[in-house]
Amino acid sequence: MDVNRYLELVRKKQPLIHHITNWVTIYDCAQVVKSFGASPVMAHAAEESADMASIASSLVLNVGTLTPELIESMKSAVLAANHRDVPVLLDVCGAGATGLRDRMCFKLIDETRIDIIKGNASEVARIAGADVQTKGVDSGAVSGDLAKIAAGLAVERNCTVIITGKDDIITDGKKCITVNNGHELMAHVVGTGCMAASVAGTFAAVDPGNLAEAAAAGLCCFGIAAELAVSLANGPGTFTGFLFDAVYSLDKEHVDRMKRTGQCAVTTL
Amino acid sequence: MDVNRYLELVRKKQPLIHHITNWVTIYDCAQVVKSFGASPVMAHAAEESADMASIASSLVLNVGTLTPELIESMKSAVLAANHRDVPVLLDVCGAGATGLRDRMCFKLIDETRIDIIKGNASEVARIAGADVQTKGVDSGAVSGDLAKIAAGLAVERNCTVIITGKDDIITDGKKCITVNNGHELMAHVVGTGCMAASVAGTFAAVDPGNLAEAAAAGLCCFGIAAELAVSLANGPGTFTGFLFDAVYSLDKEHVDRMKRTGQCAVTTL
Amino acid sequence: MDVNRYLELVRKKQPLIHHITNWVTIYDCAQVVKSFGASPVMAHAAEESADMASIASSLVLNVGTLTPELIESMKSAVLAANHRDVPVLLDVCGAGATGLRDRMCFKLIDETRIDIIKGNASEVARIAGADVQTKGVDSGAVSGDLAKIAAGLAVERNCTVIITGKDDIITDGKKCITVNNGHELMAHVVGTGCMAASVAGTFAAVDPGNLAEAAAAGLCCFGIAAELAVSLANGPGTFTGFLFDAVYSLDKEHVDRMKRTGQCAVTTL
Repeated sequence: MDVNRYLELVRKKQPLIHHITNWVTIYDCAQVVKSFGASPVMAHAAEESADMASIASSLVLNVGTLTPELIESMKSAVLAANHRDVPVLLDVCGAGATGLRDRMCFKLIDETRIDIIKGNASEVARIAGADVQTKGVDSGAVSGDLAKIAAGLAVERNCTVIITGKDDIITDGKKCITVNNGHELMAHVVGTGCMAASVAGTFAAVDPGNLAEAAAAGLCCFGIAAELAVSLANGPGTFTGFLFDAVYSLDKEHVDRMKRTGQCAVTTL
Repeated sequence: MDVNRYLELVRKKQPLIHHITNWVTIYDCAQVVKSFGASPVMAHAAEESADMASIASSLVLNVGTLTPELIESMKSAVLAANHRDVPVLLDVCGAGATGLRDRMCFKLIDETRIDIIKGNASEVARIAGADVQTKGVDSGAVSGDLAKIAAGLAVERNCTVIITGKDDIITDGKKCITVNNGHELMAHVVGTGCMAASVAGTFAAVDPGNLAEAAAAGLCCFGIAAELAVSLANGPGTFTGFLFDAVYSLDKEHVDRMKRTGQCAVTTL
Repeated sequence: MDVNRYLELVRKKQPLIHHITNWVTIYDCAQVVKSFGASPVMAHAAEESADMASIASSLVLNVGTLTPELIESMKSAVLAANHRDVPVLLDVCGAGATGLRDRMCFKLIDETRIDIIKGNASEVARIAGADVQTKGVDSGAVSGDLAKIAAGLAVERNCTVIITGKDDIITDGKKCITVNNGHELMAHVVGTGCMAASVAGTFAAVDPGNLAEAAAAGLCCFGIAAELAVSLANGPGTFTGFLFDAVYSLDKEHVDRMKRTGQCAVTTL
């Protein structure tokens, strides 16, 4: 996986990334995409979501502050993206916390083509059918091998699955990539998970035929930028500004020196 | 009031704090709660607000960007929280600015059990029945003794009342605590009032039987962190990052050295 | 144009600036207004938007995350503002990206009195009738003289028109002012365009009889603050904190030393 090539592609192609996302981290999602050199746009009205998806190079959905109306608007956008074979990523934010979140995620996954499902451990486990509880939007305990859970879901849903956490797992059911960049401070910063989804969606936009590699390259860049930011920050507040700076300035030297990726065995049920 | 004990309790229990709040400061409210070591979740859909409140340890409501539909969703959440005796805090943001805000605040206070009412001087005075005008969400002039107004409202509504400002007043109508930490720069930063509500709600979660003490301990910690942030910041922009860092790193030494709390006389009408 | 006089007026009058804006940059819009010493309030419910506009000194609208319902609420607010001759600024954010955005902007412009229309090059060109495509909320290519396009729209709609970009153009169809302050880094920061609208609306509030001069003075101050922030920042992340600090601390010495404004010829079709 040539991370530098993906980073260059994002900066060269400057893809338009359409988001229908949550109201908590909407600025951070937009800014991380813009810092990578791409163009974010947030447009959630049902009357335009398909039109906006029709000019975008990927679609990032996040159910963090969902309503049923927002899900309908997402559905319209996905159908437009599906029609043009534009990658669609769904962040199943809060799945396992309430019944509404589970139902709405399944509605999207069942009724449209979601190319990448992304969440933390308990969110993805819930979508894979496990009986787990998510603590709001923070992961609950999950028993079992996360790579196996992810690969099983990828095969079942014929998509790429991302579990973010201390190590990120990205799998399409055939290959499995781990990204070991990042820092534990990120768990204390609101929005790092949402931004990871936006980054994966941005990199997916430039190589729709290799979603797992593209998403993993994006998460690797994001994790390296986070490590650079941690080295300058004094806590979760100053971290965010340094993070966007580091994303903006990230170069080949950083990637070559700091990249830590690996492979995990794909053993589906 | 053992402020350090409360700070330790929040970090140990890591309570889930459910917010239905405004779209302006929603990130800041989440990040301040997370920086204290607790878990924020923002969920406003009427179809899940009761479910989310049912797994939370406190509920923080803020009407800063209200709609009538949002108030209905808040009502469902409060009823679920009331059922489980989970503390509910209402930030009457903008009360006294428009008739809608007044009516919606009274609707919640009349039709559910609100445990803590929080606002700036003119917001709380309006809810206590005074004929005052709030300048959008900034306090207007209030004549009279604020502690008396707060205590009167606390007795009338059988709840705890918080008035934030240069000095914070916290009273349940029997005891009255002042918190004199904080800094005048906070008045130039959007969201400090909203964050104060989230902090009070977070500390209330760990001692539901002593809401005034718990909320006051939280506001004391928040004010100390703000003073630490001001000492590093050059204005209202860089302040916010340093604030979250200071909250995250706050320790017993800071609290013991910087705590400035007092008591006010409770004289209700 | 006496920029310092306008800056002093904003700080002295502390006008209340009512926003109905987008969910991405809502915090930044509020904070930039507050950093200038004015009072921002964000209130979008149709049940109160006219009431809030009735106590405000200007109204700033931004269709960045519009819905048809939000446009109706904006319309109520504009009618209340029009009734009191309070300046109304419309940021036609994303015009030229989807049909909905175009239609909703035209609805407001046709059915109410908009005093200032503001956008980037392709957004304003679209509202002026050109067949251009906006890339989400980032400007697309526009052929032709931007000052001429702006002046033509100003005459057609009997209003002031602002095109922001590398140089800002402000014209009422008779006079045309350019503001050459600012920095290219701003194009990499989400929200600089939205904040420019809030600043123009804030300065318009203190001199409703001279909207072009007032708005240009505001954009000049904003651009100078941005240049000061760039000199301290390492990228688009740390920029924002320094920007608010610089706005808050901006003084006559900065303005006199750094102001770069000019005039453009007004040649309407």
